[in-house]
Amino acid sequence: MYVVVNAAMSADGKLSTRERRQIRISGPEDFERVDRLRAESDAVMVGVGTVLADDPSLTLDDRDLVAEREAMGRDPHPARVVADSHARTPPDASILDDTAKSFVLVAEEEPTEHVQSLATAGAEMVVAGENRVELPEAFEKLENRGVERLMVEGGGELIFSLFEADLVDELHTFVGPKVIGGRDAPTLADGEGFVVDFPELDLVNVERIDDGVLLSYDV
Amino acid sequence: MYVVVNAAMSADGKLSTRERRQIRISGPEDFERVDRLRAESDAVMVGVGTVLADDPSLTLDDRDLVAEREAMGRDPHPARVVADSHARTPPDASILDDTAKSFVLVAEEEPTEHVQSLATAGAEMVVAGENRVELPEAFEKLENRGVERLMVEGGGELIFSLFEADLVDELHTFVGPKVIGGRDAPTLADGEGFVVDFPELDLVNVERIDDGVLLSYDV
Ligand SMILES: NC(=O)c1ccc[n+]([C@@H]2O[C@H](COP(=O)([O-])OP(=O)(O)OC[C@H]3O[C@@H](n4cnc5c(N)ncnc54)[C@H](OP(=O)(O)O)[C@@H]3O)[C@@H](O)[C@H]2O)c1
Ligand SMILES: NC(=O)c1ccc[n+]([C@@H]2O[C@H](COP(=O)([O-])OP(=O)(O)OC[C@H]3O[C@@H](n4cnc5c(N)ncnc54)[C@H](OP(=O)(O)O)[C@@H]3O)[C@@H](O)[C@H]2O)c1
Repeated sequence: MYVVVNAAMSADGKLSTRERRQIRISGPEDFERVDRLRAESDAVMVGVGTVLADDPSLTLDDRDLVAEREAMGRDPHPARVVADSHARTPPDASILDDTAKSFVLVAEEEPTEHVQSLATAGAEMVVAGENRVELPEAFEKLENRGVERLMVEGGGELIFSLFEADLVDELHTFVGPKVIGGRDAPTLADGEGFVVDFPELDLVNVERIDDGVLLSYDV
Repeated sequence: MYVVVNAAMSADGKLSTRERRQIRISGPEDFERVDRLRAESDAVMVGVGTVLADDPSLTLDDRDLVAEREAMGRDPHPARVVADSHARTPPDASILDDTAKSFVLVAEEEPTEHVQSLATAGAEMVVAGENRVELPEAFEKLENRGVERLMVEGGGELIFSLFEADLVDELHTFVGPKVIGGRDAPTLADGEGFVVDFPELDLVNVERIDDGVLLSYDV
């Protein structure tokens, strides 16, 4: 599977405030770019932290992109994927609406009734890992269901795990001209953090967009 | 006083690892740039967190820059400044060596014997603020001692406080092609964090340097 991570961060590397309140970091040109990236993907993924904080739908905004996908015989919108070991996604979350397919990745130890209620809400459940979603195994299972190209939109906990498991192919970061600050605010890559063997990136493109800059890396 | 903040961060906004271990983020071209920025400043400042973690001397590397300053009748090196409310700077810290002048900013409640031992080690003590260094007051006192142009090199706690007190004029961030990660790793701006009234920056220059990118902002 080919994995593209995309996120918007402040000039100081934050995805949102310490209250995990979503802040407008980018602008209209970047939104369009993100929509196009989504349209090119088989599925768009977030962690359950992002679902609980922002309740995103992750579907396409631009009708033309939907039409293009349909003309190619694809589903109108890419599928949505949530990494959610303990099935904490609310059954009425936007990500489970019937605009597009939804996969919820859960761990094995998760009681069947939780899993059942999400399945009833329309999600396809993917079990991988004992008490936390095991990403390499989950991604193999997604690939078997047709997800060849996956876009990941955050948050920082999920992005760190993806780098840790060496699953990222491209990273695109929009850096906005704002300072959010906060030692407890989510950053582009949280988790435990590396202390040796830092993932090395290859900066392949730098582009001014809106009032910030888009940095594109190969991993 | 004119205040220029300069720091190197990873692609995910970190200044160092969660163990606060310094990591080489930039390269030779950026080091030269930082040395020039230092040479143009009357003083170079860090927080005591950086002194304790890295023991930097903050003096100029390039002999030519020293010679240029001397030719202009200036001190060979810019002065060093530490924000250190409780006088925790070790008396044998490199920042207090006799290569250049050193100012230590402390709070009023700090017992005189600590202050005395740093003064004995050669530091000029500047008292400002009751139990934490009050930066606006401290900066006025520094200005009275000839510091018109101040460069601040970090860390994230100090940088956040400077933005909070609206004391920053320029921000230069070298973004290196590395992922450090870690929800506890120091970022470019830590502290409490903003939740409203985020400082807005004006991205005035984007320049590829070494294998990363330098982002320059006016505040
Ligand atoms: N600016 C942007 O572009 C952007 C994009 C997205 C999000 N955000 C912001 O980011 C914040 C949320 O980020 P976050 O870091 O808290 O949450 P997150 O990364 O969205 O979700 C993290 C959660 O995912 C679950 N998970 C399952 N398997 C995992 C694995 N293998 N590795 C890591 N996590 C796994 C974990 O919960 P379980 O243990 O329960 O499974 C974990 O707590 C919000 O404030 C949101 O606004 C911003
Ligand atoms: N990559 C880079 O360019 C770069 C540059 C510098 C540092 N670093 C890294 O940054 C880390 C250290 O950063 P840090 O954030 O822990 O420490 P820091 O910002 O260097 O120092 C913070 C300390 O300064 C003192 N201080 C005094 N007055 C203050 C005020 N008004 N506001 C804020 N702080 C004040 C406080 O201690 P008291 O309360 O005791 O006064 C505070 O804990 C190290 O790991 C270092 O390697 C990296």
